[in-house]
Amino acid sequence: TECFYPAEHTHQHLRYNPLRDSWVLVSAHRMKRPWAGQVEKPPEEHIPRFDPRNPLCPGNTRANGEINPNYDSTFVFENDFPALQPDAPDPGSDQHPLFQSKAARGVCKVMCFHPWSDITLPFMKTPEVVKVIDKWAELVEDLGSTYPWVQIFENKGAVMGCSNPHPHCQVWASSFLPNEPALSDRCQRDYHQKHGEPLLLQYAKQEAEKKERVVVQSSHWLAVVPYWATWPYQTLLLPRRHVLRINDLTAEEREDLAAIMKRLLTKYDNLFEVSFPYSMGWHGAPTGPHLKEDNSHWQLHAHYYPPLLRSATVKKFMVGYEMLAQEQRDLTPEQAAEKLRNLPEEHYKSREE
Amino acid sequence: TECFYPAEHTHQHLRYNPLRDSWVLVSAHRMKRPWAGQVEKPPEEHIPRFDPRNPLCPGNTRANGEINPNYDSTFVFENDFPALQPDAPDPGSDQHPLFQSKAARGVCKVMCFHPWSDITLPFMKTPEVVKVIDKWAELVEDLGSTYPWVQIFENKGAVMGCSNPHPHCQVWASSFLPNEPALSDRCQRDYHQKHGEPLLLQYAKQEAEKKERVVVQSSHWLAVVPYWATWPYQTLLLPRRHVLRINDLTAEEREDLAAIMKRLLTKYDNLFEVSFPYSMGWHGAPTGPHLKEDNSHWQLHAHYYPPLLRSATVKKFMVGYEMLAQEQRDLTPEQAAEKLRNLPEEHYKSREE
Ligand SMILES: O=P(O)(O)O[C@H]1O[C@H](CO)[C@@H](O)[C@H](O)[C@H]1O
Ligand SMILES: O=P(O)(O)O[C@H]1O[C@H](CO)[C@@H](O)[C@H](O)[C@H]1O
Repeated sequence: TECFYPAEHTHQHLRYNPLRDSWVLVSAHRMKRPWAGQVEKPPEEHIPRFDPRNPLCPGNTRANGEINPNYDSTFVFENDFPALQPDAPDPGSDQHPLFQSKAARGVCKVMCFHPWSDITLPFMKTPEVVKVIDKWAELVEDLGSTYPWVQIFENKGAVMGCSNPHPHCQVWASSFLPNEPALSDRCQRDYHQKHGEPLLLQYAKQEAEKKERVVVQSSHWLAVVPYWATWPYQTLLLPRRHVLRINDLTAEEREDLAAIMKRLLTKYDNLFEVSFPYSMGWHGAPTGPHLKEDNSHWQLHAHYYPPLLRSATVKKFMVGYEMLAQEQRDLTPEQAAEKLRNLPEEHYKSREE
Repeated sequence: TECFYPAEHTHQHLRYNPLRDSWVLVSAHRMKRPWAGQVEKPPEEHIPRFDPRNPLCPGNTRANGEINPNYDSTFVFENDFPALQPDAPDPGSDQHPLFQSKAARGVCKVMCFHPWSDITLPFMKTPEVVKVIDKWAELVEDLGSTYPWVQIFENKGAVMGCSNPHPHCQVWASSFLPNEPALSDRCQRDYHQKHGEPLLLQYAKQEAEKKERVVVQSSHWLAVVPYWATWPYQTLLLPRRHVLRINDLTAEEREDLAAIMKRLLTKYDNLFEVSFPYSMGWHGAPTGPHLKEDNSHWQLHAHYYPPLLRSATVKKFMVGYEMLAQEQRDLTPEQAAEKLRNLPEEHYKSREE
């Protein structure tokens, strides 16, 4: 069911992303073109609850010989092939401005959400999802006591480079502020200085009023397809209150977050009737040495970047033009939001049973 | 055949990308981890030279009913599903700083390299590749007379969103300077102001001396895995002389470019013995209204972004950490350059025959 949009929305135009100080090309009419390109394999349907060879399952042995406990909730361990280690030497620099390098230190952790391999967040009980949120908060608190940045992220689905169906995320803490949060920090700081209000607090208020990009909302949270979305069904999950970091959330806000995550992810699964792939992650105020600074320009938020465009097997390719010139999208954020908003909140798999 | 690298190269570190003012995380030791994730379908091996249903072949009818001429060299036509059209209305803007939009106008062209569907650039004769370069120059000259940016790019292979095996590229001209060239313009301008020399001219000189990142070179051109490469086997193709735009290349430089492109792409194919997928594109000084400005900080260059990491079917996923925090690579640029440099210049398919 397509609906009417004013001409300025279906004709190509540019939209400004105030969190990245960049533009996205919106070419809604491109959805009309036929697709004869690559199709993805739909995700495996029959995942065993317990697989004796899966290194993420309770009681199994991992690559380094360690044995997982028989965990019955979340379980955190050190990544066996970490991109960041605590003890890397300083590479030095030959000082030429075109050959600059810097030391990078950190830790990489993996966090299982649940003991079962065949469950996903929308099917977990709210208190189980609260346990995941509590553990995220604990990791940001602990690692953030020394590291300036703690990146929580989840790659879900083989199409997003996830090599294990067991529900899990990763937490990489680093001795440096990475590019994306550094950019977001600068943008939020500039906005705050200019307008006297945190960027994302103002944005959430505006979106709650405008309504056209809202997907789901609750008393403490709001999920929208942002005005500047680049991925077809990208969403931004925002608290309504001014919150700097995930560990600042109250028990009530965490419970409400668990509920809205389940609702959002159920809609995602319902969109193409498939366990929806995405990469997601949290951005909050920097930590470590930044804990002593004024970070009132920051607002906690989660980004969901799902790759699918047309169906369970046809994704959006961010390739030539996007890599070399500018990101381009094929439907408007309002069209995406409306589609998601109108989907049922009951999971298509529950209806099947 | 692995070779010895000093510890600072195999331990994680950050490297600065002076063309994008950002950093990349280099974690060479990550190549040791096993891969149980998604594998790509290898590209189709038996492509017919002429397919009556392929809209890019000579003499065939396209989506809009137009009939292709019986072309015997390059062939350029308007994209039947363009992301940019010349007549889009101005969307206006409600002026709120968080909801900014701008008009976007332009044209999208498709350019076939050759009448045959079963040929690729490394197998084309040098004079045939020169014809491609001449046509690129002509398009930049023509479209650049009014448009500020003309983006030439090629998506090669299904894994890079290319939906047609016929050898072709695209040319999108826009009424605006897109994000990537705008950033590159700023970086090159700053460097020039600070150091009195174009960034990439200085860089090419340094790399030609250092040699460790050089893949192929000729009297007029140099191809290196840049010090700040993000994709595993990314390369940067640079003229040795100061050249602003592709249409400024002399006949001799074009012939030399055709030859070095064939050599580089042959090495790419030889790496995993597969028709190597990539997105590539040209960046030169802006055009249209910018033709009247001083653009001496610019140096023409081509970026090649190939996705494969381990084999013909295992690519690098730029997902969670890369999307939310920072790009991360699993082998050093020096390791990648050495691997490419040591590959034969004879195509593996010619050896088979
Ligand atoms: O124009 P094509 O080849 O149909 O489409 C391809 O290249 C475009 C430009 O990079 C991308 O926006 C599309 O996602 C991709 O599938
Ligand atoms: O750490 P994993 O899950 O093995 O690996 C996955 O996520 C990483 C972080 O986004 C990426 O660098 C890898 O390319 C991807 O395959």
